[in-house]
Amino acid sequence: MQKNTVNYIGCDAEYQDASVVLFGAPYDSTTSFRPGTRFAGQAIRNDSYGLEIYSPYQDKELTEDTVYDCGDLELAIGSSERVLEQIRECAEEILKDGKLPFMIGGEHLVTLGSVRAAAEKYPDMHIIHFDAHTDLRQDYLGVELSHACVMRRCWEILGDGKIHQFGIRSGEREEFEWAKSGHTDFHPFRLDGLEETLEKIGSAPVYFSVDLDVMDPSVFPGTGTPEPGGADFLSVMDAVTKVCGRANLIGCDVNELCPPCDPTGASTAVACKIIREMLIAIVNRN
Amino acid sequence: MQKNTVNYIGCDAEYQDASVVLFGAPYDSTTSFRPGTRFAGQAIRNDSYGLEIYSPYQDKELTEDTVYDCGDLELAIGSSERVLEQIRECAEEILKDGKLPFMIGGEHLVTLGSVRAAAEKYPDMHIIHFDAHTDLRQDYLGVELSHACVMRRCWEILGDGKIHQFGIRSGEREEFEWAKSGHTDFHPFRLDGLEETLEKIGSAPVYFSVDLDVMDPSVFPGTGTPEPGGADFLSVMDAVTKVCGRANLIGCDVNELCPPCDPTGASTAVACKIIREMLIAIVNRN
Amino acid sequence: MQKNTVNYIGCDAEYQDASVVLFGAPYDSTTSFRPGTRFAGQAIRNDSYGLEIYSPYQDKELTEDTVYDCGDLELAIGSSERVLEQIRECAEEILKDGKLPFMIGGEHLVTLGSVRAAAEKYPDMHIIHFDAHTDLRQDYLGVELSHACVMRRCWEILGDGKIHQFGIRSGEREEFEWAKSGHTDFHPFRLDGLEETLEKIGSAPVYFSVDLDVMDPSVFPGTGTPEPGGADFLSVMDAVTKVCGRANLIGCDVNELCPPCDPTGASTAVACKIIREMLIAIVNRN
Amino acid sequence: MQKNTVNYIGCDAEYQDASVVLFGAPYDSTTSFRPGTRFAGQAIRNDSYGLEIYSPYQDKELTEDTVYDCGDLELAIGSSERVLEQIRECAEEILKDGKLPFMIGGEHLVTLGSVRAAAEKYPDMHIIHFDAHTDLRQDYLGVELSHACVMRRCWEILGDGKIHQFGIRSGEREEFEWAKSGHTDFHPFRLDGLEETLEKIGSAPVYFSVDLDVMDPSVFPGTGTPEPGGADFLSVMDAVTKVCGRANLIGCDVNELCPPCDPTGASTAVACKIIREMLIAIVNRN
Amino acid sequence: MQKNTVNYIGCDAEYQDASVVLFGAPYDSTTSFRPGTRFAGQAIRNDSYGLEIYSPYQDKELTEDTVYDCGDLELAIGSSERVLEQIRECAEEILKDGKLPFMIGGEHLVTLGSVRAAAEKYPDMHIIHFDAHTDLRQDYLGVELSHACVMRRCWEILGDGKIHQFGIRSGEREEFEWAKSGHTDFHPFRLDGLEETLEKIGSAPVYFSVDLDVMDPSVFPGTGTPEPGGADFLSVMDAVTKVCGRANLIGCDVNELCPPCDPTGASTAVACKIIREMLIAIVNRN
Amino acid sequence: MQKNTVNYIGCDAEYQDASVVLFGAPYDSTTSFRPGTRFAGQAIRNDSYGLEIYSPYQDKELTEDTVYDCGDLELAIGSSERVLEQIRECAEEILKDGKLPFMIGGEHLVTLGSVRAAAEKYPDMHIIHFDAHTDLRQDYLGVELSHACVMRRCWEILGDGKIHQFGIRSGEREEFEWAKSGHTDFHPFRLDGLEETLEKIGSAPVYFSVDLDVMDPSVFPGTGTPEPGGADFLSVMDAVTKVCGRANLIGCDVNELCPPCDPTGASTAVACKIIREMLIAIVNRN
Repeated sequence: MQKNTVNYIGCDAEYQDASVVLFGAPYDSTTSFRPGTRFAGQAIRNDSYGLEIYSPYQDKELTEDTVYDCGDLELAIGSSERVLEQIRECAEEILKDGKLPFMIGGEHLVTLGSVRAAAEKYPDMHIIHFDAHTDLRQDYLGVELSHACVMRRCWEILGDGKIHQFGIRSGEREEFEWAKSGHTDFHPFRLDGLEETLEKIGSAPVYFSVDLDVMDPSVFPGTGTPEPGGADFLSVMDAVTKVCGRANLIGCDVNELCPPCDPTGASTAVACKIIREMLIAIVNRN
Repeated sequence: MQKNTVNYIGCDAEYQDASVVLFGAPYDSTTSFRPGTRFAGQAIRNDSYGLEIYSPYQDKELTEDTVYDCGDLELAIGSSERVLEQIRECAEEILKDGKLPFMIGGEHLVTLGSVRAAAEKYPDMHIIHFDAHTDLRQDYLGVELSHACVMRRCWEILGDGKIHQFGIRSGEREEFEWAKSGHTDFHPFRLDGLEETLEKIGSAPVYFSVDLDVMDPSVFPGTGTPEPGGADFLSVMDAVTKVCGRANLIGCDVNELCPPCDPTGASTAVACKIIREMLIAIVNRN
Repeated sequence: MQKNTVNYIGCDAEYQDASVVLFGAPYDSTTSFRPGTRFAGQAIRNDSYGLEIYSPYQDKELTEDTVYDCGDLELAIGSSERVLEQIRECAEEILKDGKLPFMIGGEHLVTLGSVRAAAEKYPDMHIIHFDAHTDLRQDYLGVELSHACVMRRCWEILGDGKIHQFGIRSGEREEFEWAKSGHTDFHPFRLDGLEETLEKIGSAPVYFSVDLDVMDPSVFPGTGTPEPGGADFLSVMDAVTKVCGRANLIGCDVNELCPPCDPTGASTAVACKIIREMLIAIVNRN
Repeated sequence: MQKNTVNYIGCDAEYQDASVVLFGAPYDSTTSFRPGTRFAGQAIRNDSYGLEIYSPYQDKELTEDTVYDCGDLELAIGSSERVLEQIRECAEEILKDGKLPFMIGGEHLVTLGSVRAAAEKYPDMHIIHFDAHTDLRQDYLGVELSHACVMRRCWEILGDGKIHQFGIRSGEREEFEWAKSGHTDFHPFRLDGLEETLEKIGSAPVYFSVDLDVMDPSVFPGTGTPEPGGADFLSVMDAVTKVCGRANLIGCDVNELCPPCDPTGASTAVACKIIREMLIAIVNRN
Repeated sequence: MQKNTVNYIGCDAEYQDASVVLFGAPYDSTTSFRPGTRFAGQAIRNDSYGLEIYSPYQDKELTEDTVYDCGDLELAIGSSERVLEQIRECAEEILKDGKLPFMIGGEHLVTLGSVRAAAEKYPDMHIIHFDAHTDLRQDYLGVELSHACVMRRCWEILGDGKIHQFGIRSGEREEFEWAKSGHTDFHPFRLDGLEETLEKIGSAPVYFSVDLDVMDPSVFPGTGTPEPGGADFLSVMDAVTKVCGRANLIGCDVNELCPPCDPTGASTAVACKIIREMLIAIVNRN
Repeated sequence: MQKNTVNYIGCDAEYQDASVVLFGAPYDSTTSFRPGTRFAGQAIRNDSYGLEIYSPYQDKELTEDTVYDCGDLELAIGSSERVLEQIRECAEEILKDGKLPFMIGGEHLVTLGSVRAAAEKYPDMHIIHFDAHTDLRQDYLGVELSHACVMRRCWEILGDGKIHQFGIRSGEREEFEWAKSGHTDFHPFRLDGLEETLEKIGSAPVYFSVDLDVMDPSVFPGTGTPEPGGADFLSVMDAVTKVCGRANLIGCDVNELCPPCDPTGASTAVACKIIREMLIAIVNRN
C-alpha cells in the first residue's frame, strides 16, 4: 500500500534527481476583485491527470526523473510579508541545490518572493513578464505589497530595462507612460517582439513570470480580473515554449488561475497544458 | 460620511455638467429563452470597478464631469407598453436637455422606448444595429412588442434604408429576405461595410444599438440566446469605437447581457469594456 | 434625475437624523478556506429589495429616518492592520456622534476594528458572540490578526467573563478548554442560556457579533467554512431579535456571508432577513 | 420506433381515459426578482424519471391510465392578458371534459387563468393557498396582473372568506391587515389549522394552489424569491396529501420552481415528489 | 390535446416518410474524467427551440417530413457490451429501412455500436473522424470498451487507411506513431486536407463521427475533457457541412457534449447549431 | 522537501501502525441519474483541511498513528466486475492485516466489493445500512451489478435477517414488500430502532454502509438522486457515532457524495464531518 502522493502528472522524480522543482504558493490575500487563486495548485494537480505526458506540438515527453513536485506551501494567510519570506526561502533552497524553481500561484504578488531569491543568486537577471496588466503601481489603496504593484517591486530590485513585458492591455495612464519611458521593455497588447527580446537577452539569466490572464477570457475566463482582448491559446503556448526552450531560464511561475471562477474547468485545463508545454520545453533543452 | 452612490466607473458628473447620461432599463419580460438581462445594469456598475478609466487602445481617459449615471429605472415589470413609455420619457428628458442618452438593457425591446424619443427629436435619424439576430418579425407568438420584433417596430417609425444591420446570423428565411429586399441596409455575418455605411450616413443623426450577442459566445456566453459564429472582441471594440467617434451620435444602447447566464463573470467584463470604449470615444470626439 | 444611491432597503435616513449607521467592511484577506465575503455588503444591499420593510414576526416596520447606510468602506486589501484601523476610525466617528454602528462583514476579523472603537468608549462592555467556531486561537499559521483569532484578540481588550459565546461547535481542544476554564461565558452547540445571559448582563453596554455560520449549512451554505450541526433560521432570528430588543446594544456586526459560495442566493436572503429583524428590533426598542 | 413523448413519470394515460390532466404554464414575465420559472415544467418532467411511481408514505401507486400529460402550453411571452386567456381556455376544456386540471407553473400569476375557468364552472368554489407571500397587493409597480397580486385578483372573483391562506410570512403591513380583517381565512407562518379549514369547507369545490416557496429555502432554494422561515418538506408533503385526498378538489397548481436558481437540482426533486404525492392522493381518493 | 412530443426542432416527420432518423445514446459509463454526456440528447432537444430551421449560411431550411426523432434509447447503464448491442440494433433497423442513422451521444464509445451496424451493411465504408483525441488505445486501465479506444475498435473492423482523423491534438506518443505509420489517415491539429480526403474517398460509403471537443474549449467548454488548441466554430461548421453535403454519407454521430460541464449553455447552443447544419446539408444534398 | 501527500486530515499513520485504513473507490459507472461520485474521495481529502481533529460532540480527538490513508484506487472505469474485484482485493488485504477497511465511494455499488472480502473472513457478519433507497432490485435496466441492486447482491451472500436497513424512503412497491417479508430488518423513513438492532446484533461482526443520501437534501443536496424527506444532520451524526462506537465493526463505507452536484461545498463538509465522527468513534472504542 502506497501513500497518496498527488503530483502534477509525470512529476514523480525524487528531489535529488530532479532538475526542476514544482511548488505551489496558494496566496490570494491582496487580490482586488474576485479571490480564489489559492486553489490553483490543487486544481492543477488534480486535473493534470486528464493530460498525457506527451506533447504532439513539441513531439517530446515529460521525461521521468526530471521534475519533483513538493506540493503547495503552507502559507501565513493574511500576512504578505511573511508569505513572501516563506516563498523566498523555498525558492532559495531550490536554487541553492542547482535546480530550477517552478512556482504555481496564487495571485501575482507571489512572484516577488521567488524573484527576491533569484535576484540574490543572479543579480544580472532579466524578467520576461506575460500579463494583461501592467502591475506597475507604486501602491494600491495604500498597500505596496499588492498584486497590482508586483512588477514595480521587481523593478526596484533589478532596475531599468531588465523587465520585458508582453501582452499588457490594462493599467492606469501613468503606468503606461512610466513603462514606455524606458523603465521596462514594453510590448503592449500582443506578444510581438518576443524573438527580438530573446535575442537581445542572449545568455543572461531569465526569470519567466506568466500571468495567465495574458490570454483572452474566451480562452481563460477563470481568473479574478478577466481582461478582454487578449492572446489566443496557441500563440501563448507557442511563446512560452519559445521562452522556456531558448532562454537561460533560472526560474519561473504561472499564476492567477482562479478555479472557482470557471465552473467549466476549461481554464484549469488551459493552465495544465501551458505548464506541461513549459516543463517539456525546459527538461528537453540542451 | 457620504451616501453610497453606485455609478459606472468614472461617471460621477453632476447632471447639469454632463454631456452623456447613462441609465439602465432592467426589463426582460419578453425574452424568449433564458431571462435575466434585468440584472445587467447592476452587474455592469458593480464590476466596472475592476476597470481603469484609461483606454490604452484609444490612449484617452474617461474625463471627469462628462457622464452622469442615474442608475436603473424602476420599471413596470410585466407590462411592455408601460415600460416602453417609462423609457421614452427618460430618454426624452435627456434629449430635451441637450444630452446624449446611453441606455443599458435589459433585453433588446427596450431600444424601442429610446428610439421613440429620439425619432421625435430627429425624424431623419438612422439606426446602426449590431446583432446576431434580425429582430425583424412582425410578431412573436402573437406578441408584437417582443425583443424578436424590435427592429421591425423601429422600421415602422423610420422607414426603408434607415436601419443598418451588422453581424446578423440568425433569423427566419422570411426575415432575411425582407431585410435584403431593401427594407434595411443588411450586412449579415460580419461587420464588413461599416466604413462605407458611416461615410454614406455622413452627418445625419445616428442612434446606435448594440446587442452584445453580436459577439461569439466564446467571448460573450452570458446572454439569453447564445448564437455561435459571431465576431471576436477586438473587432467589435474597434467597430463600436468607430461608430461612437465618427457618427453624429444622438443616442445609443448596449443590451442583452444576462449576468446569471455566465457565472465566470467574463461576459460582464466584456460588456464593461465595450461601454468604456464607447463612452471614451463619445466624450472625446470633437 | 436622482443619483443612483444603493442602500439596504428602508435605510434612507440622512446621517444627522439616523440613530443607526450601516456600513460594510468588505475584507476577507485572512479567510482560511474559501474567500469571497468581501462581496457580502454589495449582495445584501442589492438583494434587500426583495424584502418588505414590514416584519410580520415583530409586527413592526423599519421606520423611515432612523437608519443611514454609508455603503462599503474602501479598505486596504491585503493589510489587516491598516484595515482594522480604517474600521476603527469609522466606528469611532459613528459612536462619537451618538449613533449605533452596524457593520456588515467581510470575514470575522473585521469585528476587531469595531470592538476597538467601542471598547474605548465603553470599557465595561460585553460581547455577545454567535458563531460555529470558537475563534479563540492565539495565532493561525503564525498570524495573530486572523478571523480564527478574533475573539482571543477581543478578550485581550475586555478580559475574562465579558464574552458570551453561543452556538460554538468547532475548534481545537485547547480552545474549548480555554473557553470553559472561565475566560468566556461558553454555550456550545446551541443558543440555550441566552435569556439568562441577557438578564445577567442587565444594562451594561453590549456589542453583538453575529457570525452567520452559527446557522446550519442547510439554511446558510453560503459561507467560507460551512459547519454542519448548527441552529435553524427561526431560532437564530428569534435570538437576534431578543438581543437587539433587550440588551443595551451599543454596536453590532453581521459577518461571514460569502455570496459566491451559494449560487442559489438563499444565503443572501437569510442574511438580509436577519439584518432586517435586527434593525427593526433596534429602532423600535424603547 | 416510437415518438419521443416526454411525460411526468407514470402519466401516460390517453386523454379520454384520464381523470387528471397535467399541463405546464411556462410563464414568468411578471417575476419581480429572479426569473426562470418558465423552465419548471420541462425540468420536472425530465427529473421525474428519478422517482418511482410508488409512494411508501401513502403505500399507493400512481396507477396507470389515470393521468394525461399534455406538456407545456406555448404561451405568448410578454403579454400577461393573452397568457391568462390561453391558460383559461386550456383549463376550461379540461373541466368541460369532466377532468381535473393540474397545472405546473410558471410564476404564481398563472393561477389566475385556471381560477377564472374553475370559477366559471364552480362559482361557489374555495381556494386553498399555500405560500410564503400574501400575493394580495392591489398592484405592483403599477401593474395589476402580477404574481404579487394574484390572490387579490382571485378574491375579486370569489369574495370574502373563500381564500384560505397558509404559511404566509412575507408581505406589506397593509396586506397582512387586509387579510386579517376577514377578506381571507388567514393562517400566517405555519400550516396549522388545515384540518379545521378542510372540515369547514366540507364538500364545497376546492381549487388548491401551491406556491412551493411555502417551504423553507433550506428545503427549496430554487425559487425566485427565497423566503427564510418556511415549513419543512414532510409537513408540506403531509398537508398537500391531506388536501388532495380529502377536499372536493376540482383543480390545482404547483408553481414557482425556478430550476436555474438551484444548480443542485434538489429543488426540482422536491417539486417532483410533492407533485407525485398530490397525484397519488387525487387518483386514489374514493 | 396533443401528447408532449419533444423532438429536435423541425424533426417532426413520421418514421415512414423520413430519410434521416435521429436518436440519442445517453451513455457515459466509461468517461475517464468528468461524466455527464448522458444528458446531451435531452439538452440538445430542449435548447434546439432557440434555433430557427433556416440556415443563412447554406440559405436552406430543414425541410419538413425528412427527419424523424425517436428520442433517447433507454440504455443498460453500466454495461458497455449490452449498451453497444442496443445501439447496434437500433442503427441496424434504421439502415435496413433505407434511412440514415444520426446518433447523438453520449460519450464517444457509442460510435462503436453504430459502426458495427453500418459496417455490416457497408463493409467497404470509411470513417471520417473529427476529434481532439486519438482514441486509438488498445485498452484504458485494462478496459477495451472505452471511449479512449473507440477508433482502435473501429479499425479492427475496417482495417488500415479507412479511418480519416482530423483535428487530433492529444494522445500518447504510441498512438500518434501508430496512426502515422499508416493505420489511419492522420491529420493532426487542424482540419486541413479535408477536401483531398473527400475527393480520395469519392463515392465510397462514409460514416461521419464528430467528437465536439475537436473545437477549442473557448467555443465548446462543455465537454468532459476540454483540450485547448482546437478549431473555431466557423471552421468546424464549414467542415461538417462539406462532409455531409458531399460524401456518400450512410450514418453519423455527434458526441461528447456534457451539459452539466457548461452552465452557460453556450456549448449546447454550439452542438445544436452543428447538428442543424449537418441535417440541412444531408437533407438537401442531391 | 517533502512529497505532496494528501490524506484525510489527521490520517497520517504509517500502514503498519494503523488500525484503520481509509481508501477511495472512485467509481460511478452505474449511476442512474447524475454521475460524479467518482470525485468524492478527492473532494473529501481536500476539504477535510477545514476541519479540526477534535470533536466537541464526543470530546475526543482523531488520535495520531491510528488511521492510514492510501488514497483512491485506480479503477477500471466502465467495467463493474473488474472494479469490484479491485475493491475486494484491497479490502481483503486490509482485513488480512487485521485492520479495518474504511471505504469512501463512489456510488453505492462499490460496497459489494468490500462486502465480498468481509464476508469471506466473517461469514456470520451483519450489515447495517443507512440509505434513502432500498437498493434491493434484482436488476436495473437488465444490469445486476448496479447501485440500485447492491443490497440484493449482499443479501445473496448473507441471507435473510442479516441486513438492517434504516432511513429508507424510496423504492418500488415490490422492493418494500420483499424487504418487509423478512428478507431484511427494515426500518423505513427514520433511524428509529437502531438501539434495539445494535443490542440484538450484540458482538456479531458488523459491516456498516452509509449512503449519505439518508440525509435530507436540505442538509446534503450533493448527491446524484436527492430524495426529500430524510434525516437531519445531528440525528445521522449521532447514529453513526453509536454504530461505530458500540458495534463490533469490521468494515465500513461512506458513499454517494457527488461533489459537482453541490457547488456550495456544504455537502462535502457534511461528508467530512460524518467521516470524522465515525473515525473518532472507531479509534476510541475500547
